[in-house]
Amino acid sequence: MSRLRFGLIGTGFIGRTHAIALNASGAVFGERFAPVCEMLADHTEEAARRGATALGFARGTGDWRELVADPAVDVVDICTPNYLHREMALAAIAAGKHVYCEKPLANTAQEAAAIAAAADAAGVRHMVGFNYICNPLLHLAREMIASGELGEVYAFRGSYLEDYMSDPASPWSWRCDRSLAGSGALADLGSHLINLAHFLLGGIARAQGSLQTVHAQRRDPASGAARAVENEDIARALIEFASGIPGTFEISRVATGRKCGLDFTVFGTRGALEFGQERMNELRWYEAAARAGREGFRTILAGPIHPDYRAFCPAPGHGLGYNDLKTIEVRNVVRTITSGAAGWPDFHEGARVQRVMESIERSHAERAWTEVAP
Amino acid sequence: MSRLRFGLIGTGFIGRTHAIALNASGAVFGERFAPVCEMLADHTEEAARRGATALGFARGTGDWRELVADPAVDVVDICTPNYLHREMALAAIAAGKHVYCEKPLANTAQEAAAIAAAADAAGVRHMVGFNYICNPLLHLAREMIASGELGEVYAFRGSYLEDYMSDPASPWSWRCDRSLAGSGALADLGSHLINLAHFLLGGIARAQGSLQTVHAQRRDPASGAARAVENEDIARALIEFASGIPGTFEISRVATGRKCGLDFTVFGTRGALEFGQERMNELRWYEAAARAGREGFRTILAGPIHPDYRAFCPAPGHGLGYNDLKTIEVRNVVRTITSGAAGWPDFHEGARVQRVMESIERSHAERAWTEVAP
Amino acid sequence: MSRLRFGLIGTGFIGRTHAIALNASGAVFGERFAPVCEMLADHTEEAARRGATALGFARGTGDWRELVADPAVDVVDICTPNYLHREMALAAIAAGKHVYCEKPLANTAQEAAAIAAAADAAGVRHMVGFNYICNPLLHLAREMIASGELGEVYAFRGSYLEDYMSDPASPWSWRCDRSLAGSGALADLGSHLINLAHFLLGGIARAQGSLQTVHAQRRDPASGAARAVENEDIARALIEFASGIPGTFEISRVATGRKCGLDFTVFGTRGALEFGQERMNELRWYEAAARAGREGFRTILAGPIHPDYRAFCPAPGHGLGYNDLKTIEVRNVVRTITSGAAGWPDFHEGARVQRVMESIERSHAERAWTEVAP
Amino acid sequence: MSRLRFGLIGTGFIGRTHAIALNASGAVFGERFAPVCEMLADHTEEAARRGATALGFARGTGDWRELVADPAVDVVDICTPNYLHREMALAAIAAGKHVYCEKPLANTAQEAAAIAAAADAAGVRHMVGFNYICNPLLHLAREMIASGELGEVYAFRGSYLEDYMSDPASPWSWRCDRSLAGSGALADLGSHLINLAHFLLGGIARAQGSLQTVHAQRRDPASGAARAVENEDIARALIEFASGIPGTFEISRVATGRKCGLDFTVFGTRGALEFGQERMNELRWYEAAARAGREGFRTILAGPIHPDYRAFCPAPGHGLGYNDLKTIEVRNVVRTITSGAAGWPDFHEGARVQRVMESIERSHAERAWTEVAP
Repeated sequence: MSRLRFGLIGTGFIGRTHAIALNASGAVFGERFAPVCEMLADHTEEAARRGATALGFARGTGDWRELVADPAVDVVDICTPNYLHREMALAAIAAGKHVYCEKPLANTAQEAAAIAAAADAAGVRHMVGFNYICNPLLHLAREMIASGELGEVYAFRGSYLEDYMSDPASPWSWRCDRSLAGSGALADLGSHLINLAHFLLGGIARAQGSLQTVHAQRRDPASGAARAVENEDIARALIEFASGIPGTFEISRVATGRKCGLDFTVFGTRGALEFGQERMNELRWYEAAARAGREGFRTILAGPIHPDYRAFCPAPGHGLGYNDLKTIEVRNVVRTITSGAAGWPDFHEGARVQRVMESIERSHAERAWTEVAP
Repeated sequence: MSRLRFGLIGTGFIGRTHAIALNASGAVFGERFAPVCEMLADHTEEAARRGATALGFARGTGDWRELVADPAVDVVDICTPNYLHREMALAAIAAGKHVYCEKPLANTAQEAAAIAAAADAAGVRHMVGFNYICNPLLHLAREMIASGELGEVYAFRGSYLEDYMSDPASPWSWRCDRSLAGSGALADLGSHLINLAHFLLGGIARAQGSLQTVHAQRRDPASGAARAVENEDIARALIEFASGIPGTFEISRVATGRKCGLDFTVFGTRGALEFGQERMNELRWYEAAARAGREGFRTILAGPIHPDYRAFCPAPGHGLGYNDLKTIEVRNVVRTITSGAAGWPDFHEGARVQRVMESIERSHAERAWTEVAP
Repeated sequence: MSRLRFGLIGTGFIGRTHAIALNASGAVFGERFAPVCEMLADHTEEAARRGATALGFARGTGDWRELVADPAVDVVDICTPNYLHREMALAAIAAGKHVYCEKPLANTAQEAAAIAAAADAAGVRHMVGFNYICNPLLHLAREMIASGELGEVYAFRGSYLEDYMSDPASPWSWRCDRSLAGSGALADLGSHLINLAHFLLGGIARAQGSLQTVHAQRRDPASGAARAVENEDIARALIEFASGIPGTFEISRVATGRKCGLDFTVFGTRGALEFGQERMNELRWYEAAARAGREGFRTILAGPIHPDYRAFCPAPGHGLGYNDLKTIEVRNVVRTITSGAAGWPDFHEGARVQRVMESIERSHAERAWTEVAP
Repeated sequence: MSRLRFGLIGTGFIGRTHAIALNASGAVFGERFAPVCEMLADHTEEAARRGATALGFARGTGDWRELVADPAVDVVDICTPNYLHREMALAAIAAGKHVYCEKPLANTAQEAAAIAAAADAAGVRHMVGFNYICNPLLHLAREMIASGELGEVYAFRGSYLEDYMSDPASPWSWRCDRSLAGSGALADLGSHLINLAHFLLGGIARAQGSLQTVHAQRRDPASGAARAVENEDIARALIEFASGIPGTFEISRVATGRKCGLDFTVFGTRGALEFGQERMNELRWYEAAARAGREGFRTILAGPIHPDYRAFCPAPGHGLGYNDLKTIEVRNVVRTITSGAAGWPDFHEGARVQRVMESIERSHAERAWTEVAP
């Protein structure tokens, strides 16, 4: 079997993360999962050429359509701003390429569903870059929930708190423009939290959300003029899973002091789990059946017994990093495509996440509980 | 000035806490704040006599009405189950006694307001036992918010999570009976959280809540038969303060593993605060203006520079305990009564807390945002 | 049985702590353990009278010898600076009084042993104020060690780190004078750590210590002139218990940032324990036999199942404070005296602690391992 | 400039870590720091061929001498057990290759010094794999110390606690054989701690150590027979830096529950720093000059402002992992070799670390303070 050849579009924050992971996957997971870094697309030929050299790609191009059309590219990896995902994904699908796209998949649920349908129709594989759920400890968490180790689960608390726009002086950016970014914190951060909730407890049925734009205007970095921020800084929601389990979401890009606060707690009749991404190598577990006087949340450190950790390191507690999650994700993408079976989280999950986001937005506008579209 | 003479009704968990605090206040805060432990009322003469001896009271009585009527009692201190507060408070007020009553003040907002009005009409002083806000570090938190040290505050997250009814096998108790306890976790724990929110950020204007009864039936401890649980195990709410600041509440008596999880976070443009009652001697503060590369939440340990701490101990980090908060509260009660000025949290605050609780309950029933009654 | 009448000498930091505990013990532990606060001695009549009133004592005196001689005083409670302990303790013993003395018992091991011998000869009871070991969680720790729950224990790490003299500008005080304070951090803080080690693992056989005076001179607060600091700011030691278990001590009064860092770790073949006084309501336990992939240090919160906690509060996780430890200690003193049996930690333990301190000092001087005198 | 070609010997735990880092360095740090994975040596041709394919190397060999001699190999990267380092390093030096060797450099200080001298004489560059000091937060720590941000530093506490041999049933391995592994925990873990101490505070002048073998015998995995453990499980030491700063070391491979406990604290007149490798993305800093009542250890999360972090991720708090430290180390090796300047930690540092280890061992044997050989 020959190695899959990846074409990467975009070299911003997340594009570089993909590049690092594409380079790392083989050494970590073995040759079967070693992609070929075939081609890199950037704004200009020059930038693409430099990027390709710096990031270990064979070739660069200033025209992403060229990359999509290139016969030596098997997988199109989309790392551009949200509003470009749709056009690029559809073009790649049309060219018969497998597609690996960053979250959120699109700016609307309808668009996301259309992309997923097109991909299925074309018979290509598709995956969305929800990297956080690749954490070995979150697989442990899901297993503990699924196996009944927590008893009957009846409550979920989830939050994703960052502060990258906390400073009132942070300039206006495309992230503040609804036509480019869609919703604000909800799209950027909330999409991860929703996917994580799906991962642990299944689909979400309804929500009652509340959105807040703390800084209604920000300075345009070019002109210095005030520009309207068109989407929310904070989203909060009461939610209910299809299973009947209620919960809450709290999502913010202005959570002063929090840097990567993707946190959750799950409560069940026999135990509870707590997790926070800023300490991504720790899972806190409370076992209700512990001997009286000896109960307490225990901090499980990630180790080789947990899925995928061993590929990085045979010693427990040595710790994975943020980029390692992406390396696991790349392995998942390669495995999905080469196995021919559907992977997860695929574009349908991408669309589902979008539908939850839209139900939160709609419920805010209508000030009422709102069903998630099926 | 002669010392205030207290009559305490009830010797359960919270009654004993009051007794300990009444005994401690003088040695901690000085003679001015040393109450006389005059009289104790319990179910029977025998229990009252034994209780009085054990808890350092001069006399005991099996009839609380006798205590209320006793001319040597200046302050009636009510530590009985919620449903008895109203009758006892009104009787004490009618007898011209100052009243110090445990939370929640009553089972309905209307009742609470009536008690407050009666107390005002009678010209007696009144205080509710919201002990958590007596914490020196919460006074620091409030001061930091009020002084602008956090900049403009725009978000609040609060929760009160305990697990005392987490075990499905925990028996049915009066706490499950709506006529006796009112609401469930909301009344027992949520009342503290609401008071704390008021303390930090002022009045709450509206809420959209969601209630959940995880264990719909519990075994009657006497008969062993299943009995319906008539109030909620968990309450969640989106809230909005009168100031316009939005927030969330999460309240649970079935939060497996959590023992005293009265936690909050406040976010502002210049900083953030985090607190958790299980580590009540720590306040975590993030200062946005810290030198680049040196930012981080710092853990402030309670010390003599923080209000009231020094009375307990001149050395920082040595730590107060749960009962010490009650000792501060008793000092506040004595100070309020002897100064003649209105104290806080008084019965009006007790009624206000109740109105927020009722708006959460109503919003759950109507599945809609609900204004807090004025 | 009549209540024990206490005479307290000294109203500084620790004297007030004793006074608070003497007032609290009865309400917490019941009438049997309610001391009578009979008499208070201070520098002057006036100070003593004010102190007695403020701290709930019946009478005050400006002459501690009067207190010792007073027939209404059953127990002499010594809370003065170290160098006064000896004279006062011997006078109290001579007067046939039980003696409750703060740590360190004396400035030398020889003095301490002489006091212990005198007390035994006089047939009075004697206890030293090592309050930290009164913590319910430390009793749990000792029980876990003794019962074999940790397997064979083979290593101990202990430290007591504070920063009360960390500021180079902190003035010279009696604590810097060897004739008044004896050793420095070792006497003031190390005595607690040594007692704690004894409590958990038994006697210490030998040590190799190293002392350090960081600030060799400090300003006299009166004259402003530089005065020599005659004892150490930091003591470190390799130690070995009589049982053969090795360990380390680290003791500092200049540990910038640490406020009450009495911390230890115990390692055994089947588990480990970690504790830190700044979070005195938490004990961290690692169970080696936990299911693979589920191991981790768990944080046990103090609760009513742990010895003595229930007397303060029936709810777990609500937390004791520093002063509560002293209340337990007072109960222990009363119980020891009224039971007639020897208590612990008595003056012999006080002398033993002193001998360990002296072996550390001697080993520093001789730069060699030094046996603890028997 | 052409890319450096690496030949890697050994594919165990640390060999795979090197392989992953060699593959990652280019994508993370750019083409200048992209090594060529030229050749891999393993026990057999077959293993080497499979390893090369799996780990992204161009070629494999069953004979490490072939790798050393290969003209296409510029740098020999030694990841074999300790006892093989010497022979391989000397062979590589003899062949004129640059050498990158895992710690400890050799089994004795004399051997280590000889290797360093040979490398210097041959004019090749040399580096030792002390990966932990590559942490961006430790560079921040060093900068804070060096710049005086902590004031005058006067105390160091360091420990490296793991539990990989904590289980009494763990089998005998080459690590228990003095001729193969040299000392035990001291060599394996202590070498990192000593290097870290050097990194932060410079050379160590003397030590008084104490060694302990908890499990004197372990079962041979083949025969099942008991075999003597020839080196220590735990090493403790009082130390003194050449600068006069005293400190302590505690090193254990049987620290039940600890997985990667490379922890330290540094105390100075103006502040303190705390670090623990299990939370490698956090540095705790106490600033003594903070406003009164606002002091506390703050948790600085690693971010792009700290050296090298940005190459991995532009967002703070997202976190590096253990393998990322090795990627930084590989970049350092490449930079050292290509710049032609001496790097650090080089073989002289490797020898210095060894001399500290030997002084600790000697001081244990002689039960006396022992100077570190110059």
